[in-house]
Amino acid sequence: MDLTALKKELDGTRTEDNPAIVQQKSRDFYWYSPVLKRQLEQVTGDIIVSPKDEAEVIRVLSACYAQGVPVTPRGAGTGNYGQAMPLSGGVVLSLADMNSITEIAPGRVVCGPGAIIADIDRATRAHSGQELRLHPSTYATASIGGFIAGGSGGVGSINWGGLRDFGNVLRLRVVTMEAEPKVLDLTGEELHKVTHAYGTNGIITEVEMPLTASYDWVDVIVGFDDFADAAHYANALACQDGILTKLITPVAAPAPWLYFKRHQRFLREGQSVVIVMVAPHALDAFLAFTRREKGEVVFDASRVEDKKGLPPAYELAWNHTTLRALRVDPSITYLQSLYPFPNQLELVRRVDAMFPEVVSHLEFVRFDGNITCFGLPLVKFTTEERLDEIVRTYEDNGCPIFNPHRYTLEEGGMKQTDQIQLAFKRQADPRGLLNPGKMIAWENPEYDYRSGKTFLFKGLER
Amino acid sequence: MDLTALKKELDGTRTEDNPAIVQQKSRDFYWYSPVLKRQLEQVTGDIIVSPKDEAEVIRVLSACYAQGVPVTPRGAGTGNYGQAMPLSGGVVLSLADMNSITEIAPGRVVCGPGAIIADIDRATRAHSGQELRLHPSTYATASIGGFIAGGSGGVGSINWGGLRDFGNVLRLRVVTMEAEPKVLDLTGEELHKVTHAYGTNGIITEVEMPLTASYDWVDVIVGFDDFADAAHYANALACQDGILTKLITPVAAPAPWLYFKRHQRFLREGQSVVIVMVAPHALDAFLAFTRREKGEVVFDASRVEDKKGLPPAYELAWNHTTLRALRVDPSITYLQSLYPFPNQLELVRRVDAMFPEVVSHLEFVRFDGNITCFGLPLVKFTTEERLDEIVRTYEDNGCPIFNPHRYTLEEGGMKQTDQIQLAFKRQADPRGLLNPGKMIAWENPEYDYRSGKTFLFKGLER
Repeated sequence: MDLTALKKELDGTRTEDNPAIVQQKSRDFYWYSPVLKRQLEQVTGDIIVSPKDEAEVIRVLSACYAQGVPVTPRGAGTGNYGQAMPLSGGVVLSLADMNSITEIAPGRVVCGPGAIIADIDRATRAHSGQELRLHPSTYATASIGGFIAGGSGGVGSINWGGLRDFGNVLRLRVVTMEAEPKVLDLTGEELHKVTHAYGTNGIITEVEMPLTASYDWVDVIVGFDDFADAAHYANALACQDGILTKLITPVAAPAPWLYFKRHQRFLREGQSVVIVMVAPHALDAFLAFTRREKGEVVFDASRVEDKKGLPPAYELAWNHTTLRALRVDPSITYLQSLYPFPNQLELVRRVDAMFPEVVSHLEFVRFDGNITCFGLPLVKFTTEERLDEIVRTYEDNGCPIFNPHRYTLEEGGMKQTDQIQLAFKRQADPRGLLNPGKMIAWENPEYDYRSGKTFLFKGLER
Repeated sequence: MDLTALKKELDGTRTEDNPAIVQQKSRDFYWYSPVLKRQLEQVTGDIIVSPKDEAEVIRVLSACYAQGVPVTPRGAGTGNYGQAMPLSGGVVLSLADMNSITEIAPGRVVCGPGAIIADIDRATRAHSGQELRLHPSTYATASIGGFIAGGSGGVGSINWGGLRDFGNVLRLRVVTMEAEPKVLDLTGEELHKVTHAYGTNGIITEVEMPLTASYDWVDVIVGFDDFADAAHYANALACQDGILTKLITPVAAPAPWLYFKRHQRFLREGQSVVIVMVAPHALDAFLAFTRREKGEVVFDASRVEDKKGLPPAYELAWNHTTLRALRVDPSITYLQSLYPFPNQLELVRRVDAMFPEVVSHLEFVRFDGNITCFGLPLVKFTTEERLDEIVRTYEDNGCPIFNPHRYTLEEGGMKQTDQIQLAFKRQADPRGLLNPGKMIAWENPEYDYRSGKTFLFKGLER
């Protein structure tokens, strides 16, 4: 690619081509995975381009289309699967500057894709006591556009399910990668085209998200001697329709005491826990229920005087559990599993226990109207072969794995072609310049997901 | 009882002993049931006493205790089972004047038991965009205290379950019936003592209820040629975790066209419907989902210009469905059934179809964390024996009936003694003067629920 020509073409738009900065801005938290760490370590873009509005996005895409330059969109770079890493180099399109919040109404917020999730909540809370339904554990740093394009659910999924459920994204404005880029407003069923597509088939320039009532959520940790009891309690709590929570996270011993360093003074060694965010007005009912279920409340933020230095509960949960473990023990990695309803508790007990190097970590959610749990089990990493063996065993036992050691949409997802996303890519990115290498269905339509082999994008071979 | 002495004792508190007015205020909507109509038609109190505050309640209870006068508390009299009908005469204690709203905070409202539910919502909406989680179809006229003491759930139960679930009532202040009445603030597990106890073991003088975000709910009616399709669609909609609804009510043909007179112009004869209240910001996703499920939107309040004279959707649902049918065909009555998860659709199809005089009417709810449905099937009444036969057949097929043709707590509920309520009655109403005849466990501890016989309170034999 002719960087000089491209820069000239983009005059007026902020760019950055200092290699150290470009490399930094070409990365995400891919290093949670030793596999991705090995595969993606050398990946870098050629230039960071930071449009300030949709008109600039259109100009960038048009110029890159003309010159055949790959474009990989990026929010805040808080993903874990190399979602926003430019496998073929080229332009890293940072949407971080497009972060304005333009409308807040009952149940709705409209903003730029680069708006930080915590900033959105700050604005909507101040405006009308509202907050987003869902957020990742990287609440404080993640962008809303990155969450939609690269995430699937998180804190709040216990009430609302996942991002791809009808109603959890209201509207996405998307620019296509063509000679003359089109601007499309997608709603309803059409949203599926671009949610969780890693920016492979359009650039999100505006989002409209549903809001719900905001509360000063109370962080609570409930301790159990036995993890099976913790999981059972968490499941029962999740089934309490009248107790409003936002997070229900069982973590098995020895992880809590070992890895939740700042909360260690509240924990006992060898204790399993359930981390909960509960609405203040539900706290009384929550405590009554917890007493009845013989849970021991070891931490209740509403009663702890000195909370200095304590991270919020959601920064002990979802992928922050992994992060805290990794900080203490760099040999730890993780998986992402689903324990399908109605056998979730039995599956957790049976499958997690098959591997001595696995420590259970569950996230309770609503899933198709039922209460069940995802897992983000911690795994003491030895070899990639062993990791693959664990994945296969989970799947053979009926627990789908959303493999966080793969950078493609399909391998990290349902191991099948998403025909809707593929069809939209044909239309919105005919030259295949958006985030190359992430959609197997586009790169290699003949690829056999049952081969057991990892898809290796040619861009990584350069 | 010595009415003159009692009136003198209560000097300063509002009373009414005009027999016509007393009779009117001694009744509820018991006449929905031809059985209760026959049994309770003669029931009347001796005097209506309307305290304006808790101090007056205490004075009334103390005086009645001393004189051995029965006291039956009453909200707005919108119950259907004679809950507030004074089987032994005496004082009808109207809490209607204790209707002030004293505190509104995030997630909470504190008010008197006599506050009308719609008035509470009006105040909390204006204050901070909040509303109650649950309300009966008698929203516009029912009191919150009556709903708690005599109801179980309703509009909103699709999100929050029922009133007796942890968290759906926050606090109840209760006065006991003793020489020196005690005032108790009940929270957590203790709430169970008096919720849905028909006022048999304490007088509620203040309630604290949870609030949720309020929206300008959009009423929608979706039409189907076949009721099984309507029920299937309603179940699938209820399982959409991201589509915020407040009511999902399938009603089988021929009821909608025959009985929803004011909506008749939108319906076809022979059409089954699903009545939905959907949040405005969820409407787009709802319509996309409904299209995918091949539902025909026959009424969408957001697109109908002339809504004059149309009742709100919730006044087509829950017990208002029965009311509308009764107005057209006075021979109609109803039952209340539960179709337990996970076989709800199969049970509806099989059991409702056993009786030619039954027309299906379902209400989808969250129940112990699962989506399932209650039924309020319309029944063309012939004889009490036939009605009992229908009840027995439902129960024999695994569908519990909460019999609305019985005035006792147990027969209208789970046909067993509620030990917690009974124990609290022993403590709070030692002379058995509160709402006599409604708790079988108190009146006749030896009563055999399996006898198949209706419990007949001696007070009704006078």
